[in-house]
Amino acid sequence: MHELVFIQDLATVMLVAGLTTVLFQRLRQPVVLGYIIAGLLIGPHTLPVIFIHEEQTIRTLSELGMILLLFALGLEFSLKKLRAVGGAALVAAFAEIVLMVWIGYEIGRFFAWSAMDSLFLGAMLSISSTTIIMKALEDLGLKRERFAQLMFGILIVEDLLAIVLMALLTGIASTGGVEAADAFAAVGRLGLFMAVSLVVGLLLVPRVVDYIARVSRNDVLLVAVLGICFGFCLLVTELGYSVALGAFMIGAIVAESESVARVERIIMPVRDMFSAIFFVAIGMLIDPALLMEYAWPIFIVTIAVVVGKVVTCSFGSFVAGNDGRTSLRVGMGLAQIGEFSFVIASLGLTLKVTSNFLYPVAVAVSALTTFLTPYLIRGSDPLAGFLSRHLPGRVTGVANAYTDWMGNLGLSGQGAIVMKMIRRLVWHVIINMMLVIAVFIIVAFAYRRGFLHLDLLAGQPTVKRSLAWSLAALLSLPMIVAAYRKAGALGMLLAELGIPERVGGARNFAIRSMLARIIPVMVMLILGLLVAALASTILPPREVALVIVAIGIGLTWLLWRVLVQVHARLQAALRDTLDKPGHAPEE
Amino acid sequence: MHELVFIQDLATVMLVAGLTTVLFQRLRQPVVLGYIIAGLLIGPHTLPVIFIHEEQTIRTLSELGMILLLFALGLEFSLKKLRAVGGAALVAAFAEIVLMVWIGYEIGRFFAWSAMDSLFLGAMLSISSTTIIMKALEDLGLKRERFAQLMFGILIVEDLLAIVLMALLTGIASTGGVEAADAFAAVGRLGLFMAVSLVVGLLLVPRVVDYIARVSRNDVLLVAVLGICFGFCLLVTELGYSVALGAFMIGAIVAESESVARVERIIMPVRDMFSAIFFVAIGMLIDPALLMEYAWPIFIVTIAVVVGKVVTCSFGSFVAGNDGRTSLRVGMGLAQIGEFSFVIASLGLTLKVTSNFLYPVAVAVSALTTFLTPYLIRGSDPLAGFLSRHLPGRVTGVANAYTDWMGNLGLSGQGAIVMKMIRRLVWHVIINMMLVIAVFIIVAFAYRRGFLHLDLLAGQPTVKRSLAWSLAALLSLPMIVAAYRKAGALGMLLAELGIPERVGGARNFAIRSMLARIIPVMVMLILGLLVAALASTILPPREVALVIVAIGIGLTWLLWRVLVQVHARLQAALRDTLDKPGHAPEE
Repeated sequence: MHELVFIQDLATVMLVAGLTTVLFQRLRQPVVLGYIIAGLLIGPHTLPVIFIHEEQTIRTLSELGMILLLFALGLEFSLKKLRAVGGAALVAAFAEIVLMVWIGYEIGRFFAWSAMDSLFLGAMLSISSTTIIMKALEDLGLKRERFAQLMFGILIVEDLLAIVLMALLTGIASTGGVEAADAFAAVGRLGLFMAVSLVVGLLLVPRVVDYIARVSRNDVLLVAVLGICFGFCLLVTELGYSVALGAFMIGAIVAESESVARVERIIMPVRDMFSAIFFVAIGMLIDPALLMEYAWPIFIVTIAVVVGKVVTCSFGSFVAGNDGRTSLRVGMGLAQIGEFSFVIASLGLTLKVTSNFLYPVAVAVSALTTFLTPYLIRGSDPLAGFLSRHLPGRVTGVANAYTDWMGNLGLSGQGAIVMKMIRRLVWHVIINMMLVIAVFIIVAFAYRRGFLHLDLLAGQPTVKRSLAWSLAALLSLPMIVAAYRKAGALGMLLAELGIPERVGGARNFAIRSMLARIIPVMVMLILGLLVAALASTILPPREVALVIVAIGIGLTWLLWRVLVQVHARLQAALRDTLDKPGHAPEE
Repeated sequence: MHELVFIQDLATVMLVAGLTTVLFQRLRQPVVLGYIIAGLLIGPHTLPVIFIHEEQTIRTLSELGMILLLFALGLEFSLKKLRAVGGAALVAAFAEIVLMVWIGYEIGRFFAWSAMDSLFLGAMLSISSTTIIMKALEDLGLKRERFAQLMFGILIVEDLLAIVLMALLTGIASTGGVEAADAFAAVGRLGLFMAVSLVVGLLLVPRVVDYIARVSRNDVLLVAVLGICFGFCLLVTELGYSVALGAFMIGAIVAESESVARVERIIMPVRDMFSAIFFVAIGMLIDPALLMEYAWPIFIVTIAVVVGKVVTCSFGSFVAGNDGRTSLRVGMGLAQIGEFSFVIASLGLTLKVTSNFLYPVAVAVSALTTFLTPYLIRGSDPLAGFLSRHLPGRVTGVANAYTDWMGNLGLSGQGAIVMKMIRRLVWHVIINMMLVIAVFIIVAFAYRRGFLHLDLLAGQPTVKRSLAWSLAALLSLPMIVAAYRKAGALGMLLAELGIPERVGGARNFAIRSMLARIIPVMVMLILGLLVAALASTILPPREVALVIVAIGIGLTWLLWRVLVQVHARLQAALRDTLDKPGHAPEE
């Protein structure tokens, strides 16, 4: 009988959702609204009939829907696109998010809601909806326009920042307060975790997926990809981050495999089914009585989202160097909230830090702003024309001058090439340092949990710790060498730039080689301090540490070529993953 | 936390299933075996580690897998293909199923199992596995050969007979015994139900699906189709039939829509995901200790399946008129059991009439026979050659003579056309009679449940019954008229055939028109008796009934043209659904 109740619930969800979405499709409204209305209809609050008998099961499946939604978003994300979009999108998205979180927070405080409710409201208002914008642009036939490309860039950065935002919210909610140091530490740990899993993931996962895709039929590939997705989500939650972060990241990692198009094709129907359940479950949370009660805040928040987003996004795009008309079109297109707001709202409910009314308010605001989106996009061009005709000439003049100045700002010629080289070297040094630290942290973690089984080798804790530390040092040797070499190259390049031929005269060479030595030594020093601080559990007594370091240096000297080769091979493998057909190889 | 446990279980299922199936794919073994092995590994009986924490949720999802598996099978089924395969497949499949049920039952009794266990064992052994055969033929590159086409025909008929078998088993299990009258009544009711829902379903569902497909994106279409599928399954279970029957039937109905290819494409990944869970859940039921205990029965049953199926299927195909070599290849290809056996086994468990060991035994036998299938298909041709060389000449001579005789048996020329016309008229009469009876049964049902709200019109039960009866009579008038007309045409045709020109002389015309009148009158008489017997709840007193019938005849006389038109329009709509592009219109 249990199974039948479940099938009955599922049949109700699918039938009602099918009816409402076909209707909304007919009315040229976003399908997502149809799902939410379906949820509202069959929810426990609206009609005096019980449609869903086991709400818990539907909730569980809706959790699955959220994972698959973010996984699919990750699949479409692609690190390459992020690289192509560049700084403009980053500036605009950052400006929008910071300002919208602040506006949302102030509105919450104005209605005398708790600080946590206000903060989550701000977070909910900060991220625009990729799916709704995609749909609207497709309907209006504007997908290929320049402003649409910029909007996609902003959405990609937004998705990424949303993940950071959620990690921050989780941290703040669990510690209870907003300590700057805690926040920085949280962001640091998050960055480290993301960097390491991206590097390791990019080395392993795309190869595994491509192998499976080569030898398997669609059903096996689907099952394997779902296994990888859910497995990674579990790992991420084990480490204390949200399941949404895991789903998005593993999606972005799988996106770098060659068979990503096939994976997308077979994942989409599964995502569609469960995300339908996700949105219906959201609708089921809405209590019409609550909506009436909170009509006033909903109205204010809706106005704030539309006006706030138009202003902040237009401002952000403009500051990033776009002309006024494009900026306004971008701003008006991004003026709505969607799936990420629901994810953040359910995060608040899961963490038990937000009030019950927040979710329905977010859903109502999302419904209203989604409804407005196509009209705003269509109205942006006339409005831009109106503004340029009626604004005082001085304002438009200054604005155009700024745009021109920004357009000419980019370095060109040899300077640009050198800047690019410096940027790449800095990145290499940072990533290698992060990997070294990660190795030490992982070994320390394994040591604490007893995974290393060092008891078999030694009894004394000091000896065991020394062994663990040596293991970590050995494993990270290739990365240490690489960091040292790249830092050396960086130093040489900087010395070359900083001390032109005509200065220094005869001692020119000596000074340059000094500078070229100082930078790698400083990098090693910083690395040593960080490792000592972060992996203190396995730090052996000072004398032992010195001996180990000395042995390490000896080994490095002996094995220099081998270590360079090992690192080169790892790096090549990573670059292979990122530079697929259609992409010119770097360096 | 609940959601996380669920994700964890799902991640385990998908990861392990992904690993085993990739391995099995590599070893060129059927993927289904990989799923079952995965289930065995993570099941509660094999390893001393608990992998799955909430087995109930996995079971619920596996139920969904069974529904989607049968729905997809229904989508591929297609009524057109069934019509094309014709009698040969029907004869072979019927012979196979009857003989295999009998063999299975005898084996069960030999091991002193209960009658019900033995009966379910027989049923499990009777149906071959479409998915496994498809895979094996694809791997061997034999899909286009003549014997493969015949095998597909047999598999289609088998799927259909499996549904009848399951309905029979449900009936037998719930009444406890095997009464011939009960069985006939059950088959009759089932046939009536299937005919009515096929006709009504074919009139409505493909149109609705095509409409949705025209106006909607893939996600909406998917949700709507799933809603239709689950909704119909619920309806079927409400009426007391198995959910598998409902899923298969609605699949076959949706298969008649024009957008079936698109529906199939978006349903497949969802089916793949849940059928993976279905097969893993089957593997989880296996207890290795139980397998050791039942090693002997498993061995015997495996031998029985292979030998029994090869003999019965080859015999069936041979009797149906195929040459010896083709028959042997067909028989050796069908020598395994698969998904339907599991469905029947879980039916037994759900009805609580079979013992716990039956399921694992079925799974083990399925695994062994699946493993053997490719070798049997490859070995069939050499074996046929060996047999034709070493069998006594007399045997092969008789066999070839039989095949030749069967090949010449089919009527040809004018006779064949007349036979076809007669067959079609008989079908029309039968279907229209069924629809009339269905209308009366539905009205009687609605009357009993009080859905008609006749209290508003009259107080006395007699009057209410008369009203209900009149309503049913009125609704079924078009079908009654059609049955009468087709029966008249049939009578005329038979008279023409039965009494050649030279006999009868002058009275020839009179005798013919007599015969042509007798048949429709008899049809009406039978119909009246059936209606009176099956819808007795609403049968009014005799006098009233006579008056209503008289009024009905009057109305019919007045509205003859209108009624003929109404029926013609309904029939045309139905024919439109069945005769899609690539299909010549009938009549």
